[in-house]
Amino acid sequence: SHHRTIRALADSHAAKTSAATETGMARLALDDDDARVRRWFASETEKLGCHNTTDQMGNMFARQAGSLGSPAPMTAMGSHLDTQPRGGRYDGILGVMAALEVLRTLKDKGRKTKYDLGAINWTNEEGARFPKSMVSSAVWSGSIPLEDAYSLADIFNPQATMESELRRHGFIGDIPCSSNANPIGAHFELHIEQGPILEDDGKKLGVVQGAQAYKWLTVTVNGRDAHTGTTPMAARRDPILAVAKMIAASNAIARESDALASTGIIKIPPGSSTNTLASQASFSLDIRHPHDDVVAGVVSRCLESFKQIAAGDGKGVDISWTLDTDSPAIKFDPECIKVVQQSADELVGPDGWLPLTSGAGHDSVETNKRCPTTMIFVPCRNGVSHHPEEYCSPEDCAIGTQALLEAVLKYDEL
Amino acid sequence: SHHRTIRALADSHAAKTSAATETGMARLALDDDDARVRRWFASETEKLGCHNTTDQMGNMFARQAGSLGSPAPMTAMGSHLDTQPRGGRYDGILGVMAALEVLRTLKDKGRKTKYDLGAINWTNEEGARFPKSMVSSAVWSGSIPLEDAYSLADIFNPQATMESELRRHGFIGDIPCSSNANPIGAHFELHIEQGPILEDDGKKLGVVQGAQAYKWLTVTVNGRDAHTGTTPMAARRDPILAVAKMIAASNAIARESDALASTGIIKIPPGSSTNTLASQASFSLDIRHPHDDVVAGVVSRCLESFKQIAAGDGKGVDISWTLDTDSPAIKFDPECIKVVQQSADELVGPDGWLPLTSGAGHDSVETNKRCPTTMIFVPCRNGVSHHPEEYCSPEDCAIGTQALLEAVLKYDEL
Ligand SMILES: NC(=O)NCCC(=O)O
Ligand SMILES: NC(=O)NCCC(=O)O
Repeated sequence: SHHRTIRALADSHAAKTSAATETGMARLALDDDDARVRRWFASETEKLGCHNTTDQMGNMFARQAGSLGSPAPMTAMGSHLDTQPRGGRYDGILGVMAALEVLRTLKDKGRKTKYDLGAINWTNEEGARFPKSMVSSAVWSGSIPLEDAYSLADIFNPQATMESELRRHGFIGDIPCSSNANPIGAHFELHIEQGPILEDDGKKLGVVQGAQAYKWLTVTVNGRDAHTGTTPMAARRDPILAVAKMIAASNAIARESDALASTGIIKIPPGSSTNTLASQASFSLDIRHPHDDVVAGVVSRCLESFKQIAAGDGKGVDISWTLDTDSPAIKFDPECIKVVQQSADELVGPDGWLPLTSGAGHDSVETNKRCPTTMIFVPCRNGVSHHPEEYCSPEDCAIGTQALLEAVLKYDEL
Repeated sequence: SHHRTIRALADSHAAKTSAATETGMARLALDDDDARVRRWFASETEKLGCHNTTDQMGNMFARQAGSLGSPAPMTAMGSHLDTQPRGGRYDGILGVMAALEVLRTLKDKGRKTKYDLGAINWTNEEGARFPKSMVSSAVWSGSIPLEDAYSLADIFNPQATMESELRRHGFIGDIPCSSNANPIGAHFELHIEQGPILEDDGKKLGVVQGAQAYKWLTVTVNGRDAHTGTTPMAARRDPILAVAKMIAASNAIARESDALASTGIIKIPPGSSTNTLASQASFSLDIRHPHDDVVAGVVSRCLESFKQIAAGDGKGVDISWTLDTDSPAIKFDPECIKVVQQSADELVGPDGWLPLTSGAGHDSVETNKRCPTTMIFVPCRNGVSHHPEEYCSPEDCAIGTQALLEAVLKYDEL
C-alpha cells in the first residue's frame, strides 16, 4: 500500500527559519523571511525531481511527473507560506508542507500517480501586508488584473509595492499568471479550520463544501484639527469620534443579520496629541456571511449609517471609502468533495468528520473558479488562528496530510 | 510716554527657524528646532543686558534689572515656545515674543521699571510630545515631583524621556526648579484666545479671570488577536470595538453635563491587519469643564461606562487607565486682573474687551498657585488653534503686547 505514517509537520524547517515569536510566526508576504522560505521550498521540491516554474506573481509550481507522461494539467495541492504579522505556524504553511510530504511519500515509496501531481505556493494569500487576500491566485484565476495586484502597496510603507518587492527578490517568473496559459487540473488544499467547530464536536476532519462571502473596505474620514479645550462640541469636525461611532454601528448592523463585522486597523496621521482633535482617521472593515446578498446588504446599511454619522456631529466630517477585497460565497466541486469524503470515511470513520463551510477565504476559492477544487480542514486548538498560539497537534497534522494523499490518489484514478 | 507702536510679531525670527508648514509650526518640546529657538531666545535677551538663568527643567528666566536694585523676585512675563505637532505660530510663541518686545521697548526708550522685570520660556507647555501639559511650570509650582517629569517618555519614542532630551541639549540648568528656591513676583501671560468668543463679539482683548478644569487619561484595553472570518462574535475579545464604544460613550456622557470630552490619540500595536482582531488598543481622553466637580463626575461616569463596555461584548476585554494630567479650575489674582482691565480700558475702551475664562490650560495656571497671576487674550481667526491655520493679525498681536506692557508697568507701580 502507499500508506505510511506521515511525520509531524509542526516544527518544520520552514517554521524555524522565520521571524518567530515563541510559538508563532511573522512572515509577511515578500519580506526577507518569505524570500528565504520560498528558496527552501524550491530546493526541497527540486530534490524530489520536480519540475519547478514561477509565474509573474511569484506563484511557485512544483510538478512531479506521472506514469502516463500525459501533458494534461497537473493535479495540484496548494496553499501559502506567508503569515499574519502576529500569526501562527499552521495557517497556510500546513497545506504547503503537507503537499511536500505527499510528494516525498510517493517518491520514497516509488509510487507514481498516473497524471502529473504537484505542489503550489501562492503568493500573499493573507493580504496582511498588501491588503488584498488571495491576490495572486486571484490574478491566476482572472478575477483581478495583474496591474492591480502589482500596484498594491505595503499598508505601512507605501513605497513598497507587490511589484517592487517581487522584483527585489527576483521572483517575477517568466510564465504568465493565468489559468489559461498555465492551467491546473484540480486543486486540493489542506488547512487548519481556524474556527472551533471540529474541536467542539470532537471530529478529526472537515470536508469543506464551500466558503462564505466577504468584502473588505477601507473607510477614510476627514475632519479638522482643533484644540480640545477651546473648541465647543458644536464647532468640531472630529474624525476620531465619527470613526468610533461607525465601528460601533457596523458591529450592531452585522449582528442584526448574523453576519460578522470586524475592524483590525485604525489609522490616524502622525503627529497626534491628547489635546488636538485629529484631521483624519481611517479604518478597515471586514464583513462576512455565507450568503452574498447578506454581505451586500450589511455593507450598504453600514455605508448608509456612516453617512448619517458623518453628517450628524458638530459641523460634520467628510467620508470616503474603497472596496479592497470582494470574495463572493462559493461552492466547491462535488467530485473533489466526494474523494475527500471517501478518504475521511476510510481514515476516521463516518463519525470522525464533518461537512463544513469555510469562514476564511483561501486560494482554493480562486482556483475553484477555474478548476475542480476542494479543501480539507483539521482542528486547531480553541479555534484560535491569526495568533501566535495557533496550534494543531502533530497527530492531527498527520491525519490531514494522510487525507490529502488519499484524496489526490483517488482523484488521479477518476 | 513709554508707549510706542509695537511691531508685528507674526513672522518672527523664531517662527521662521522651525519645521514649519506653509502657515503652521511643528516644534515639539526639546526637539532640535526647540533647542534652536531656545538658543535664539537666550541670545536675544542677553543682547538686552538681561541676566539669564535656566532651571533643572530647562525653564529659561531672563531678568532685566529695575531702577531700585531691589533683590525682590522679578515680575515675569512668561509663556512657551514649543508647539503642537501640527500647530500654529501664535499659541505660546506670542506670549514669549511679546515679553521680549516689552523688554526691548523699555530698553530702547531708556525706561526702567522699579522692580526687576523679566521674560520666561517654560519647557513643554503643550504636553504634545511628553504627555503632561504645563509640566515644567508644574514642577516649579510644586504640583508634581521633578522625578515624575524627568521620567515622562516621548509618546511615540519611549526611549527618549524629558530628562534624556534635556540632557542631550545641555538644558539642565543649575538652579532648582522650584518656586521656593527661584520665586517670581507675579506672572503675566499674553496668549491667543484659542476660541471664537472675542472674534464673534468683535472685541480686541480678553481679561482672563481663570481657567477651566481638565483631566487627561490614557485608557488601555487588552483583548486577544483572532481571525475576523472564523471567530464568532460571541467568542471575541475585541479591543478596537470596545475602544470605539468607549469613545462614543465618553462623548455622550460629556454632553449631558455640557462638558468637553475629546480623543486625539488612538494606538494599536504594530502588525495590525484587516483580517485579524487586534490584541490591544489604547486612547487618550481629555475631559474639561469650568467646574472641578463636573470634570470629576464625567470622568467617573466614563470609567463606569467603560467597565460595562469592557464586560459586555463577546468574552469581554480587560481595561486599565492612567491619569496623566490633572489641572483643577483656577481663579486668577484680582490685583493682576485689575491692572490688565485698566490697561484694556485705556487701549480699546470699556467696550473693546471682555472678561473670559480660559478653555485651555496655561503655564499661568501653575504660576497662579505660587504668585499673583493673570492672562491677556487676543482674538484668533475663527477661534482656530492647534492647527496650522491658527492666525492672529499683526494689529491684534500689537494691541495684546501693548496691553502686556501697560499692565506690567502698572503692576510695577503698586
Ligand atoms: N485563511 C486565511 O486566513 N485567509 C486569509 C483571508 C481571509 O481573511 O479569510
Ligand atoms: N494653551 C494650550 O494649548 N495649552 C496646552 C494645554 C491644554 O491642552 O489646555
